Amino acid sequence: MNQLFFVHPFLAAVANADHSSVVLAGVLLSLVVIFIASKAGGELSYALDLPPVLWELVAGVVIGISALHFVVFADNGASANSSAIISLLQWLEPQTPEAIASIFSNTSEVISVLAEIGVIILLFEIGLESNIKELRQVSYQAAVVACVGVAVPMGLGIAGLRLLFHMPMIPAIFAGAALTATSIGITSKVLSEIGQLKSKEGQIIVGAAVIDDILGIIVLAVVANLARTGDIDLLNVGYLIVSATVFLLGAILLGNVFNQGFVTLANMLKTRGSLIIPAFIFAFFMAFIGNAIHLEAILGAFAAGLVLEETDERKELDEQVRAIADLLVPIFFVCVGAKVDVSVLNPFIPEHQAGLVIALFLISVAIIGKLVTGLFVFGQPDINRWAIGIGMIPRGEVGLVFVAIGSASGAFNSSLQAAIIVMVILTTFLAPPLLRLAFKSDAASTLNT
Amino acid sequence: MNQLFFVHPFLAAVANADHSSVVLAGVLLSLVVIFIASKAGGELSYALDLPPVLWELVAGVVIGISALHFVVFADNGASANSSAIISLLQWLEPQTPEAIASIFSNTSEVISVLAEIGVIILLFEIGLESNIKELRQVSYQAAVVACVGVAVPMGLGIAGLRLLFHMPMIPAIFAGAALTATSIGITSKVLSEIGQLKSKEGQIIVGAAVIDDILGIIVLAVVANLARTGDIDLLNVGYLIVSATVFLLGAILLGNVFNQGFVTLANMLKTRGSLIIPAFIFAFFMAFIGNAIHLEAILGAFAAGLVLEETDERKELDEQVRAIADLLVPIFFVCVGAKVDVSVLNPFIPEHQAGLVIALFLISVAIIGKLVTGLFVFGQPDINRWAIGIGMIPRGEVGLVFVAIGSASGAFNSSLQAAIIVMVILTTFLAPPLLRLAFKSDAASTLNT
Repeated sequence: MNQLFFVHPFLAAVANADHSSVVLAGVLLSLVVIFIASKAGGELSYALDLPPVLWELVAGVVIGISALHFVVFADNGASANSSAIISLLQWLEPQTPEAIASIFSNTSEVISVLAEIGVIILLFEIGLESNIKELRQVSYQAAVVACVGVAVPMGLGIAGLRLLFHMPMIPAIFAGAALTATSIGITSKVLSEIGQLKSKEGQIIVGAAVIDDILGIIVLAVVANLARTGDIDLLNVGYLIVSATVFLLGAILLGNVFNQGFVTLANMLKTRGSLIIPAFIFAFFMAFIGNAIHLEAILGAFAAGLVLEETDERKELDEQVRAIADLLVPIFFVCVGAKVDVSVLNPFIPEHQAGLVIALFLISVAIIGKLVTGLFVFGQPDINRWAIGIGMIPRGEVGLVFVAIGSASGAFNSSLQAAIIVMVILTTFLAPPLLRLAFKSDAASTLNT
Repeated sequence: MNQLFFVHPFLAAVANADHSSVVLAGVLLSLVVIFIASKAGGELSYALDLPPVLWELVAGVVIGISALHFVVFADNGASANSSAIISLLQWLEPQTPEAIASIFSNTSEVISVLAEIGVIILLFEIGLESNIKELRQVSYQAAVVACVGVAVPMGLGIAGLRLLFHMPMIPAIFAGAALTATSIGITSKVLSEIGQLKSKEGQIIVGAAVIDDILGIIVLAVVANLARTGDIDLLNVGYLIVSATVFLLGAILLGNVFNQGFVTLANMLKTRGSLIIPAFIFAFFMAFIGNAIHLEAILGAFAAGLVLEETDERKELDEQVRAIADLLVPIFFVCVGAKVDVSVLNPFIPEHQAGLVIALFLISVAIIGKLVTGLFVFGQPDINRWAIGIGMIPRGEVGLVFVAIGSASGAFNSSLQAAIIVMVILTTFLAPPLLRLAFKSDAASTLNT
């Protein structure tokens, strides 16, 4: 019973009846912690000459479920009592256990949605900074890289788990599927940070990551169906392939028409936000469509960015989106880190040891399976093949989605799940410095010749 | 049973287990509708030469609980079935009633929090555009305007309701208290739109609205306590007065020290968002403190803006905040409109008729009680007294808070509640065009002399 509560019995009663003021407090405090973590991580990266996103992820781990418990998520299995921020709110103004549970789940839902809006805005920005003509020029190479990057890790993964670890078929296939993911968010952010987004390598990686994302969704649907019913639903596979193709191509083709209308409309508008609001209406609507047809919201946002990149307003728009992205994108990366429980990396916990052996195998396959994709880039003799292979390595948030769905379907036992999480963590954390290195050695060798 | 659902039994099952993807779809679609409404309203205002915020509110009414039901709120008494967006999501992918209820409450909670973040950013921006020295120069006038604007409407309101309508004491006092509010959001937005925020009148209005907000919170606490226990809790009143004063003065005094640190810190940071992230850490932290000590989050954000206005980075910061404000502030105004049920204005519904007579009285008191405040501005012979009085008229979201708390405490019967809502709506919608007119006639008379 603290002083604030003592002097405010009435306001406390009102707050109990309607928790929205407490949820707001929780959200504000979570954002403050997330922003501090993101800046601390980003600056540390800069000081150590590493890509900022890497240490933003690490900062997320520090404030998340693994360590300080400031930012934890109800849908990640955390309870209200484990959240440091909820405990602080509870100390400021005691609540009933039911109220606290509802405040916690609402707060964590709001932060989750803000993080998703963050990655939607990131992909919108990446789309705005990509060039549709350049992407089209490398589209065949990107498609090959994506297909190889799905087939090789999945094939190697399934074969190895079956032959070396004598795993049953369903978990082996699920784990193999989890190896196919590529985090378009992390890859494109690093490329943008090191100024390589518009390079030929950068465009191939982004294109391949987009195609990989679509392939990943298809693989996930097939595998999940297989785990559930024991056979493959060809109708579903067909639907996903058709809808993804129609969606992306349709968006881009229609975009050429829409372009003109957008510029005309934006020029007609006279009040504040005449450019940014129509742009976000388009981006959020495309994201909604992407989500509604069971692709991903971020694919819609990326397509919207690509379309608007074609307009004359591109530059002004990019500048305005930048400030918004600066604010919202870090929420996504910090939350990806915060959701990762690194205790699975602890070799002293006996039940993790079996998982760590599998993890070593999965990590090798995850890295090799993506590295080889660079070898399959044809018609580009001078291309940096290492950079392309490395760019496909981080599994990031897409890998975490596979883990969540696999574990919900009951296909994983705890050691396999831990192994996949370790694989996701290490590929995600390794890729940014490696990618930077690959481009640096490239620049060095160019200078030397 | 539609086609999307048919081909996606597995994904639908996953979505049922974890609704966050559907909540994201609901949030994205709500934002699309809100942005379209805000732009349509804003542009219509421009065409009709009225302040954009007025038609943003109207657009909110159109898409809200009163008409189209696109954006409705669980904490506003709406049900999931009444939401057009939830019905659309339900049509795209059928859900169980429990799932739909949870998706609806989560979606409406996220939009509510986004709206609150919107008004926090608005007040932060208003703070950034205000000048602490100019505010200090008019602080006595602002305090007098605020006190008169609380005392006169409340006194007139209570007296009239007791004498003319023979109302019991408690509801009369509650209705009188609801008359004291001033919407700092609406007033400052209009001032900013017509370029009068930095005028002497504008600064007095903003200063008075801030003080009025604090007085309003104190009045609300006192009245609610009175309604509940039958007497006045002097300790509580003292606490609120002291904490509000300490908070605002403390923030501004400490700000002078913090200023230098902020600039030094922002200059040290090297990664993206080096200015905007520290600024929002400060703004959101101050908003949290404002919320935690039971003042308002927006007061904290305003104080943070005032402090940062003093730094050399003000201009660059203001520009970056502008893009973010363009995106998030409209959510607030559209949601204020969406939450208003204008059916209480319908004179053909018998149970509203008694309320409409009381409403006529309350509206008169609400306007006269604030208009007279202009007469009490001393030491400023050339000041536009009409403009100041009119600037204090809109009750906006603050008025709605009084209604919500009054109705939760059981002090209102339905006709009194309807009357207060009508008063809030009309003062909110009348003030923007009147304020504009007041400043225009002033400019005209200045030109003529």
